[in-house]
Amino acid sequence: MQFMLFLIPNLLAPDTHSQVLPVYVSETVKTIQHFIVEDVRNARRFISSLRLGLKIEELFFYEMGKHSQFEHLESVLKLLQKGENVGLLSEAGCPAVADPGAKIVAWAQEKDIRVVPMVGASSILLALMGSGFNGQSFCFQGYLPINKQERIERIKYLEKLVYAEKQTQIFIEAPFRNDSVLDAILQNCQSTTKICIAINITSPEEKIITKPVSYWKKNKPGLHKIPCVFLMYQ
Amino acid sequence: MQFMLFLIPNLLAPDTHSQVLPVYVSETVKTIQHFIVEDVRNARRFISSLRLGLKIEELFFYEMGKHSQFEHLESVLKLLQKGENVGLLSEAGCPAVADPGAKIVAWAQEKDIRVVPMVGASSILLALMGSGFNGQSFCFQGYLPINKQERIERIKYLEKLVYAEKQTQIFIEAPFRNDSVLDAILQNCQSTTKICIAINITSPEEKIITKPVSYWKKNKPGLHKIPCVFLMYQ
Repeated sequence: MQFMLFLIPNLLAPDTHSQVLPVYVSETVKTIQHFIVEDVRNARRFISSLRLGLKIEELFFYEMGKHSQFEHLESVLKLLQKGENVGLLSEAGCPAVADPGAKIVAWAQEKDIRVVPMVGASSILLALMGSGFNGQSFCFQGYLPINKQERIERIKYLEKLVYAEKQTQIFIEAPFRNDSVLDAILQNCQSTTKICIAINITSPEEKIITKPVSYWKKNKPGLHKIPCVFLMYQ
Repeated sequence: MQFMLFLIPNLLAPDTHSQVLPVYVSETVKTIQHFIVEDVRNARRFISSLRLGLKIEELFFYEMGKHSQFEHLESVLKLLQKGENVGLLSEAGCPAVADPGAKIVAWAQEKDIRVVPMVGASSILLALMGSGFNGQSFCFQGYLPINKQERIERIKYLEKLVYAEKQTQIFIEAPFRNDSVLDAILQNCQSTTKICIAINITSPEEKIITKPVSYWKKNKPGLHKIPCVFLMYQ
């Protein structure tokens, strides 16, 4: 029997199934009874929304904590060894990209479990596609430091990389910090440096706009609590 | 009327439509008559394979050269201004990521044309998901230098970044150079550095395997002319 861990992408915005999920994803979810998830409620809601006729109460969920260790490794390994399919489900977007799922995948790789990533929406990749920035060399930098001075240093460092390496720099923030991150960018970057702000990706309100710092200074959008990806290039 | 440029993902492997393309992609292609493409034959084949009942001979294709300028900007702009949808289609995977499409998107951004990236298979992102490597900080470095000594320097530099920045390094090569790139990695990296080799992504022969350099030295796969993504982490 084959050991298989399916990496299942979740939605970025509600009711976007046909827009972001290939049929294969739903078909695969149908064959799975065991799910490693970030949050059980979110996972139940996602699987229900696929309308696969599954009885949610017959499914098994294994939660991985954001900070704590994952405690169910042994039981999941036993399932896989019995030939059961197991799914790894993100809270939003693609598992193992900017979420704690990568640790589970790393564990699966160590145990020689076959890992099958499935296609879905990644806000990082969609934002990059839409930015018009260099797609031959790009870096996702995760979250910026929370400390104000460190954040400024980091932004300046990323701008340096843009020019030195001709490399697109991509980063995100907890949505309630978006406005202060944008302020820090506008106050510390050159006026000709280009910033792409990609908001509400895959939702009907999606906007992906690339403009120089000088433009954004005069046309500062309100980003408070709006899902957002920032990209920087020359 | 709205200016809209749809970024249409192509397949990575033949006959994988239901696996990698959301229904929305085909539905959108149905509404488009004008396509900016890397290669017209490839584009015709892709659109035919979607079986949308379109008459391929009634569609218009505008080729963008890999190295030359894109000559059709003005005519495409006129179409967009008339409210026609225009699609940007990659030869494989997601447009504007590791392909010349990013220049067209940059142009669209300058002209305030709305850019709509659509979900599809990106070998880079799927490889990252399956690698188990850091998905909070990763860099796609494109192609390595062809010159042997420069390539070795580059590989050593990327390994340095892995440890200094705890950052996943991702790169690709022209498939006929895969074997020599793997040799260069194995000869120049520390034996404990982890390499993920992701081959034939989304095809039935897909394999995504993460092992330390010491393992690959003893179990060197033949990668000649096989589509392949390399990833490096600690």
